[in-house]
Amino acid sequence: MQILDLLFGKPLASGEERAEQIGPASGIPIFGLDALSSAAYGPEAALTLMIPLGLQGLHLIIPVTAAILVLLVILYFSYRQTIEAYPHGGGSYTVATENLGNGPGLLAAAALMIDYVLTAAVGISAGVGALVSAAPQLQPHTLAICLVILVILTVINMRGVRDTGVVFMVPTYLFIGTLLTVIFVGLVRALTSGGHPHPITPPPVLPPATAMLTIWLVLKVFSSGCTAMTGVEAVSNGVLAFREPTTKNAKRTLTIIIVLLIALLAGIALLCHAYGIGATNPDAPGYQSVLSQLTAAVMGRGWFYYLTIGSILLVLALSANTAFADFPRLTRSIALHDYLPHVFILRGRRLLYSHGIYALVGLTGALLILFGGVTDRLIPLYAIGAFMAFTFSQTGMVVHWWRKRGPGWQTRMVINGIGAIATGITLLVVLTAKFLDGAWVTALLIPLLILAMASTRRHYRRVAREVADPYPLNVVNLQPPLVIIPLDKWNRVTEKALRFALSLSPDIIAIHVQTADDHGTSVCDEWEHKIAEPLRTAGMKVPELVTLESPYRFILAPVMNFVLEKEKALERRQIAVLVPELVVKHWWENLLHNQRANLLKLMLLVKGNQRVMVINIPWYLHRG
Amino acid sequence: MQILDLLFGKPLASGEERAEQIGPASGIPIFGLDALSSAAYGPEAALTLMIPLGLQGLHLIIPVTAAILVLLVILYFSYRQTIEAYPHGGGSYTVATENLGNGPGLLAAAALMIDYVLTAAVGISAGVGALVSAAPQLQPHTLAICLVILVILTVINMRGVRDTGVVFMVPTYLFIGTLLTVIFVGLVRALTSGGHPHPITPPPVLPPATAMLTIWLVLKVFSSGCTAMTGVEAVSNGVLAFREPTTKNAKRTLTIIIVLLIALLAGIALLCHAYGIGATNPDAPGYQSVLSQLTAAVMGRGWFYYLTIGSILLVLALSANTAFADFPRLTRSIALHDYLPHVFILRGRRLLYSHGIYALVGLTGALLILFGGVTDRLIPLYAIGAFMAFTFSQTGMVVHWWRKRGPGWQTRMVINGIGAIATGITLLVVLTAKFLDGAWVTALLIPLLILAMASTRRHYRRVAREVADPYPLNVVNLQPPLVIIPLDKWNRVTEKALRFALSLSPDIIAIHVQTADDHGTSVCDEWEHKIAEPLRTAGMKVPELVTLESPYRFILAPVMNFVLEKEKALERRQIAVLVPELVVKHWWENLLHNQRANLLKLMLLVKGNQRVMVINIPWYLHRG
Repeated sequence: MQILDLLFGKPLASGEERAEQIGPASGIPIFGLDALSSAAYGPEAALTLMIPLGLQGLHLIIPVTAAILVLLVILYFSYRQTIEAYPHGGGSYTVATENLGNGPGLLAAAALMIDYVLTAAVGISAGVGALVSAAPQLQPHTLAICLVILVILTVINMRGVRDTGVVFMVPTYLFIGTLLTVIFVGLVRALTSGGHPHPITPPPVLPPATAMLTIWLVLKVFSSGCTAMTGVEAVSNGVLAFREPTTKNAKRTLTIIIVLLIALLAGIALLCHAYGIGATNPDAPGYQSVLSQLTAAVMGRGWFYYLTIGSILLVLALSANTAFADFPRLTRSIALHDYLPHVFILRGRRLLYSHGIYALVGLTGALLILFGGVTDRLIPLYAIGAFMAFTFSQTGMVVHWWRKRGPGWQTRMVINGIGAIATGITLLVVLTAKFLDGAWVTALLIPLLILAMASTRRHYRRVAREVADPYPLNVVNLQPPLVIIPLDKWNRVTEKALRFALSLSPDIIAIHVQTADDHGTSVCDEWEHKIAEPLRTAGMKVPELVTLESPYRFILAPVMNFVLEKEKALERRQIAVLVPELVVKHWWENLLHNQRANLLKLMLLVKGNQRVMVINIPWYLHRG
Repeated sequence: MQILDLLFGKPLASGEERAEQIGPASGIPIFGLDALSSAAYGPEAALTLMIPLGLQGLHLIIPVTAAILVLLVILYFSYRQTIEAYPHGGGSYTVATENLGNGPGLLAAAALMIDYVLTAAVGISAGVGALVSAAPQLQPHTLAICLVILVILTVINMRGVRDTGVVFMVPTYLFIGTLLTVIFVGLVRALTSGGHPHPITPPPVLPPATAMLTIWLVLKVFSSGCTAMTGVEAVSNGVLAFREPTTKNAKRTLTIIIVLLIALLAGIALLCHAYGIGATNPDAPGYQSVLSQLTAAVMGRGWFYYLTIGSILLVLALSANTAFADFPRLTRSIALHDYLPHVFILRGRRLLYSHGIYALVGLTGALLILFGGVTDRLIPLYAIGAFMAFTFSQTGMVVHWWRKRGPGWQTRMVINGIGAIATGITLLVVLTAKFLDGAWVTALLIPLLILAMASTRRHYRRVAREVADPYPLNVVNLQPPLVIIPLDKWNRVTEKALRFALSLSPDIIAIHVQTADDHGTSVCDEWEHKIAEPLRTAGMKVPELVTLESPYRFILAPVMNFVLEKEKALERRQIAVLVPELVVKHWWENLLHNQRANLLKLMLLVKGNQRVMVINIPWYLHRG
């Protein structure tokens, strides 16, 4: 327990909840890391696809980024409204379920769950990818480093939201600060030089164009750039984590995150254009990330360069944390509707939905291992889930306003309607552009997940119907059970079991399994003298003794058969099987005793039925 | 069950035992394979050490083999007497224990157990080694092939002794037949050519001498050659496996094995000398085993050569089987004296001591994995155990005759005495010669094993004392237990548990653990209406309802604490904790239900004590 306390912090009482809640300052690291850090890979992903265009690509970056920013602004206003309308947490799942019904809700749920797992996996692998490109000797250990980071994130998150916010604050604000400084200085230089600033460290020269600009390519570039938008949903899902006034704090946090993200994305696009910076081939030697080129061009390769690059590495790796903050909340909401196992509802020792964290860690670990921790292989699966969830959520909000018709409902409906249409179109574009590259995996996983969730709910509903009991306690026919005790030899364990049986019921059957390999005195030899006589003297009923021959030396099967036969023969009578068991003091002592008691308990449970109960009579060795 | 039957044969009733017993024809493959197959590696091991002596080594082989054969004859007569004196199986362990006491008995037991495991490991690895030297492309899979053979041997042996004998007869007799033919033809040629026969396929020329002949070298050569003698003990251990007249059949089997082994060893030595065949370096390219050179020299490389080599491969691999035949019998004898877990006494479905087989397979597998399946690394550990066991057994026999003083006891004592002295000296020689090469591992393992066996017996004795009950059943103070039921909500499962409790005892406490996270109606809300009222109406005692607050949301800990407190408060009263449990139909449905019932049962067992019983009330889902 002390190790647990040290690693994860002391348990928190349910009453300590408020103290665990957060404001915008720690809300940004917790819910914004995913969105903000995507500034480090979104533009890069888009620019990489433009490499074949050469210099021409540089002109494309501005309109593509503009389109993405427009979408981002639409999403911002839509989600502001969602937070307001759902102060208890309005993730896509909740909004879609409440307004569109269970089907769309499940679709949104499945899409979001998959996307959160991908967020965690992509965040970690991108961080490690950046680290490895800075220190190539670490390359062979990519997967191992990914898994170590996953473990660290798990431990930090198991401590609870507040602790997480504190840990993540420094790298997050360092990342924002350094990058904004680079952008500010760069833009000032660009303006003062009439749009053509002189780079301190010149970026690699762009290769000549080898392809023509096509609509298809523009769509693919746009789709890749859209990965920068994942994670925007996080705040609306986690409203309850904020301190009072929750809605206001959540909205403020969302505003800051979006403003920062817009500044970063716009700044990066403008500077790339001004300094003539494009992506380099990540598989070729001499690869350098876009942000590395940009920082070097604006600031030179001094200490500031390394500080910036270091914070980028850190923030990328930690961006997986948004998934940790939101996934458990999402699974809890789904479990409350019976679509996921109910353990996701339970709050663990630190007031977190611990099982959601376990599930996320398990799935992320599996994904990292499956894909070897390589970001490039994961990216095509990504963003589809997010945009699917966006679309359902926005459409749900449209219905929400329509039904509610409160003051200003038309404007609100239009805003969310624009959001729904924009994200819906984007979803189609992304799905089409990435389908063959891997989006089909996601498209396949979503219906499977929905199927699993639907059958989970079916199971719960069925069990609920089965055990539901509208009537008061039935007090008729309360007969003591028939007690069956398997006995081997007469000893204190046997005596204890027999005494317990006698205290429960007048109807007792002792059974002894006789094999040819038995040696020594069995309980049958001593029955008359040790058991029957004293009972008769006391005027009590003597139990029946049944000897079962076992030519094949099986012990448990005859006992089991006897119990089941009795059960069949005696209608409406309950049967209690007494299982005496030695409990050893040290685990290794179990090797010295047969495990028949445990096996019998297991067999009785598996092969038994409603009228067979198991009574375990433990005998604690060396403790008297 | 049908798969089991197919793999291992149908279960055998205890009465079918006689039919499972064997005569000399199948006794030789079962108990003699180890001894006989060692003709294939004993001389080779000795000759390999003589490589540096060049031609001079060839002259040494005759006297060394002669010494080994003398020792073998001594052992033969000694063990004949042992079989006669111990018709129920007179392994070293039994003989040493009965005549020298528990200490020497344990020493012999530990030594033998280790040696049997080594027999299995060395047999398999030597067979695979031979196979790999014939087909070098299999080299990287050495360990995998070793483990596959181990599995095959296990399956064959799990069918029972008779089946094993039948399977092994063909390769064994083929091995003996082909090798004796080679020796016979070779010796005739040698005699007819005046001692210098012309090889059909000439063996590689012996390298020039690079070392001088020293006493130390002779001792090492002798020690390595002595590995040919392991396994001689097997028959005396397994007397009971033979059909009536058991002693006679066992002695006849031993005689045949020893005569054959002497013929093989002597023949190989004489032919090596006559044809000028020495060992080749097993690590150098062009390595060829001694028996391969010899067969090729005498018979040429025709079909007979391949038949011979094939049977050698097979018999080496199968020689591990002697360990399978004897190890379980040995562990059974030891377990009967309480020095090993009692499971070793049980006879499985095929009348075998199955747990002995499991243990052997486990240990052999571990050894093979640890040593990568390479014979050379295993050989130095080997033979010490066997000679230690020989020495104790012979010494024990000396004491036996001395005590008995039956007719002819002096002669018998002298024979066993010579055996004891000869094997004792050999043991010292082997231990000295091989100590640094690996014998120290064995020398270290033996005392550890003895320690484990001694504490096993201590445990059994202590338990026996603790549970022994010389008195008849105590019928005083047979009070029904206090029943404690943890309840959550009112449903049919709750009702079933409560009804069972009411049928057992008038004293019932229902406990409900209340956490801040609870939602919905708890059993407390419905207590009055659903439970208390009907009971009062029926004139029955209403159980006490206790609500336990759990600020940290733990469920099991408060229940456990409550039970332990009650137990402490109520002296002499038994407490029965009722644990209602949902039993699902498909394993995966367990994911949908918390495992609290199982955890509670486990906690009650681990943290509970003599007066706390656990009553499991199962509710079988989807089965009504």
